[in-house]
Amino acid sequence: MKQGWYDHLQQEFAQGFPADCGIEVTRVDHGVFQSRLIVEARHRQQDGFVHAGVIATMADHTAGYAAYTTVSEQERILTVEYKINFLKPAAWAELVCRSAVIAGGRTLIVTESEVAARRGDEEKIVGKAQLTMMVVPAAKLRSG
Amino acid sequence: MKQGWYDHLQQEFAQGFPADCGIEVTRVDHGVFQSRLIVEARHRQQDGFVHAGVIATMADHTAGYAAYTTVSEQERILTVEYKINFLKPAAWAELVCRSAVIAGGRTLIVTESEVAARRGDEEKIVGKAQLTMMVVPAAKLRSG
Amino acid sequence: MKQGWYDHLQQEFAQGFPADCGIEVTRVDHGVFQSRLIVEARHRQQDGFVHAGVIATMADHTAGYAAYTTVSEQERILTVEYKINFLKPAAWAELVCRSAVIAGGRTLIVTESEVAARRGDEEKIVGKAQLTMMVVPAAKLRSG
Amino acid sequence: MKQGWYDHLQQEFAQGFPADCGIEVTRVDHGVFQSRLIVEARHRQQDGFVHAGVIATMADHTAGYAAYTTVSEQERILTVEYKINFLKPAAWAELVCRSAVIAGGRTLIVTESEVAARRGDEEKIVGKAQLTMMVVPAAKLRSG
Repeated sequence: MKQGWYDHLQQEFAQGFPADCGIEVTRVDHGVFQSRLIVEARHRQQDGFVHAGVIATMADHTAGYAAYTTVSEQERILTVEYKINFLKPAAWAELVCRSAVIAGGRTLIVTESEVAARRGDEEKIVGKAQLTMMVVPAAKLRSG
Repeated sequence: MKQGWYDHLQQEFAQGFPADCGIEVTRVDHGVFQSRLIVEARHRQQDGFVHAGVIATMADHTAGYAAYTTVSEQERILTVEYKINFLKPAAWAELVCRSAVIAGGRTLIVTESEVAARRGDEEKIVGKAQLTMMVVPAAKLRSG
Repeated sequence: MKQGWYDHLQQEFAQGFPADCGIEVTRVDHGVFQSRLIVEARHRQQDGFVHAGVIATMADHTAGYAAYTTVSEQERILTVEYKINFLKPAAWAELVCRSAVIAGGRTLIVTESEVAARRGDEEKIVGKAQLTMMVVPAAKLRSG
Repeated sequence: MKQGWYDHLQQEFAQGFPADCGIEVTRVDHGVFQSRLIVEARHRQQDGFVHAGVIATMADHTAGYAAYTTVSEQERILTVEYKINFLKPAAWAELVCRSAVIAGGRTLIVTESEVAARRGDEEKIVGKAQLTMMVVPAAKLRSG
């Protein structure tokens, strides 16, 4: 069932580095994944803004799971590459990330992510990424 | 003195998110910065490999400091954008990052970073990034 | 007047390399520029598809003019960098490009372009680009 | 024989759009391809510099052929995506491009290209690209 797969992805999303960063899932749908992060002192860089690495990790991980929603349980997703622009310094207390598949093939899936800083009802886009994901058979990944 | 500036950058490098990730400076020179990371369980993703976000954070932060070595103490560096390719899954226990300035102007500095996984004497390149940095007067950043 | 500036940009768009390629303006608005190209044999690559260079040239040039619509007549736009994904091979007889500004500052303007192949009423996206443009005073460009 | 394959690639390189642009092969070796272009009026943009599209086309096409040197005659190369930085405006009369494979797998090959403007013995780097190529069975491309 689709819903079972989405539930599985939602649980799997929050482990390892992204969990350590504090990124949480907020929405899962076919070709779509969204997440959020409550900004803490440890997420900042030398000037007090959220570190680009945090924004990029959200953009990448959330996009990877958007791709996951479109493949089968026998497949895994690896990030081939991405490009991200940082549009404004992010100083606010919450980050949200919206990712979507923009083109999918058998081997490669192209996705995009938008990361916004949020304060109450206000929102401003702080990062925009375009990412290429690769579909890899799960069996192959384990043997590698 | 140049050395004083380099010492300052070396200290400033390890704070906030990169410090929280455990990234340490290993070399500073004009237009050059290098770092390393001892991989822990919290750096991995769902398949046991180092998360792309860790590799990207090293590539970005180290490149930013390569750019810093070429500007004055009245200036700050912000990442405008970057592109990174993940060349191989990274499973080994140590990561090293070598960053260098490839073109510098008054406003923009273009840099590149190579991230390698290391095990004993063996090394394999796991990530390659090309990054655009912006030089911002420190005074302007504070007022913003 | 805005309209005068748009008319000027529309005329200026089609000169040099883009004119030689056969790219024509189809729409100009604030932060928006669109173009099209009738595919000829000389635009193709070794396998009969439109060459990636043609698609990239459209994506870049059209995005540059989207940025132009937001600056003054005393300013010029230069492409700092871009990233483009080729989503499908383009075999059809017409290409259309839609570009828009997604974030604008005093110095840098971030834009995106979508290039689609068209046949009658059918359309498929063949390229997606994210581009960083720089605003340069016209006077400075001439003296350089 | 390798040399036969290189000769074949050298001939195939100059057809369609790159040939129309006037790009010529200057060197072929395993994982390496180089080209040059004599700049004409038609290659320029509105400010008299070589158009970014010309530089990107050289960077992409030459990198594609660097990838070609590492695959078999039953395979074709398609550009998945690339990122290019334009480091300086290019005003000189000749462009040279040096491309190399930096990581190769069975499905994806990562390459880089450096484009320089040349005037007599002087050279300055005007573009730097990082590109992802896909290996596609020739049979599959024809049937598509």
